[in-house]
Formats: sequence, structure tokens, C-alpha cells
Amino acid sequence: MNAIFKRRSVRSYTDRPVSGEDIHDLLHAGMSAPTANNARPWQFIVVTDKEILEKMPMDNYTLGVKGAQAAIVVCGDTEKDVMKGALNVIDCSAATENILVEAADKGLGSVWYAAYPMEDRIKHIRELFSLPENIVPYAVLPIGWPEKETEVQDRFDAAMVHENRW
Amino acid sequence: MNAIFKRRSVRSYTDRPVSGEDIHDLLHAGMSAPTANNARPWQFIVVTDKEILEKMPMDNYTLGVKGAQAAIVVCGDTEKDVMKGALNVIDCSAATENILVEAADKGLGSVWYAAYPMEDRIKHIRELFSLPENIVPYAVLPIGWPEKETEVQDRFDAAMVHENRW
Repeated sequence: MNAIFKRRSVRSYTDRPVSGEDIHDLLHAGMSAPTANNARPWQFIVVTDKEILEKMPMDNYTLGVKGAQAAIVVCGDTEKDVMKGALNVIDCSAATENILVEAADKGLGSVWYAAYPMEDRIKHIRELFSLPENIVPYAVLPIGWPEKETEVQDRFDAAMVHENRW
Repeated sequence: MNAIFKRRSVRSYTDRPVSGEDIHDLLHAGMSAPTANNARPWQFIVVTDKEILEKMPMDNYTLGVKGAQAAIVVCGDTEKDVMKGALNVIDCSAATENILVEAADKGLGSVWYAAYPMEDRIKHIRELFSLPENIVPYAVLPIGWPEKETEVQDRFDAAMVHENRW
């Protein structure tokens, strides 16, 4: 069974380090997502500094990043978006999902902590990294080796499928 | 995961049919994406009726869907979104990317034709399928066996990576 189906949100991690090679593969996966007009309007911040990781939680729902070995912040560049951010969010979401699936494929754990569209979360990350005005943080992804094994869930739901008509 | 890296946009397809089992797997991949608050705010329209496929192009940039064996329309349900659609677009984009990667994994071809946020494209799909007010079409994905082989491209770009600081 492939990584798309085995991916689960993982919020606690062991002390085992994550290699630079693994981080590179995750970024490579993110950058392999398709983008509107092939604009590739993204930037990625890789955080491995423990002191910064400690400061990254955006609120009580995003504490998992403190115990991670690393984190990736997926950002969009509004200057590369002809629709003022409306395309950035799509492209950055595709990149984020690729990173999460690639992590699952490696046995790494992560979870999608959305910054955008929550203004207070965006502000926290923007200030922590002194981001330029045109750079919007979309997602914060802690990366680490899962503390526990997660069970695969079958999420297919026939009630969500319509054939040839609504 | 290899399919993440080999996925390319494919706009022309052979006459070989796409099986119901393959379509099921694509939908299953879509529904395996993570969603904000686990809301799973999506609906999928599977189109295999040739007459409907003929009517699906939203403009001259989305004609590929006419020659496809099938199409999947990924929709969001704004009634399941506490942020009036701002979370729908993220969740539906993750589902869309999963479908495209799963298609690549099977050797199937597809391309991400965004409906949202283009008002005229949304209107076309909304009218064609008589969608309820709360259902927003996000993406139209033609599905078929690629007419030509596509080359794998390495899209890693070190200029997009920042370490521990902007």
C-alpha cells in the first residue's frame, strides 16, 4: 500500500535525528507539485535549530513542532501570483501534501499545521522569521520519527461520489 | 514516493478506457488527504459520459478534458467550512494533488485544471452540473492513458530553500 494511504498526522517524535538527505527529499517532493502557469511561487524555510523550534508553536494546537527534530515552513510569494494570493494557496497546498506523503513514504511523521488563513498564526511566523511583506507562511510542518506507530485508516466514502451528475 | 517525482501534466490521451477500479483508487487517494479539523469538506463528480465530457472545457486552456476517458471534478462544501471557503481550498487542493500523484503511480495521465478562483470557470461547471449554492468546484481533472511518454524533470531548486532564518 502506498504512502498516500498510509499517511497520518503525527504529533510526537523520537529523539532520532532527521538527516539532511531526508529533508532534501521532502523539499524535492514539495517542489515537484504542479503550479498555476508553472509559476512555482513558493519558498521553504527549513528549521533545525532547537531554540527556534521551541518558539514556533503558533498556539496551543500547534505545540507538536516543539518536540520535532526539524520543521519546514511552506511559504508563498504573492509577487509571483497574478491573483493576489488566491493561486499561492492552491500551489502551496499541493506542495505541502507532497511533503507529507513523501515523509510517510520514508516512515517519517509530520502534521499539517496551517498558518494561512489564520491571521494570528501568520503574524507569529512572519515576526519570528522577519518575513518580507510579499512572503506568506501557509503551513508549518514538524518533521520527526514517529513515537508510536499509526494505524492505516480507510477513508473512502461512497457518499462523497457523484456519477455524471450532481 | 516515486510517483510524486514522475507526475507531469498530461493533456492528451489514448482511446484506452479507464477502469472503474482505477477511478475508485483515484477517489480513495483524494479522500486520504488530511483536512482542517478532519472536516473532509469535499464532494467528487466522476464523469464518464462522453457528451458531458465534451461540454466540460471551461475555456480554450482546458480543452484537454474533451479527449479524456473520464474526469473528476473536485468540489468543496462551504457549509463544512468554518472559514467560508478559505479552508475548503486548502483541503481540496491536497485531495487534488493526491489524485494526480496516484494517477501518475498507475501510469495514468491527468492535469490540474483549476476552476476556483476563476469566476467564469466556476460558473461554467456550476451550471453544467446544476450544483447547489454551497458546492464550489475547485478543480477539473481529465483522466486517461497518456498519448505520449513524458520525461521526468528534476524540479529541486536550492534558491527556494532557507535554513533556520529568512
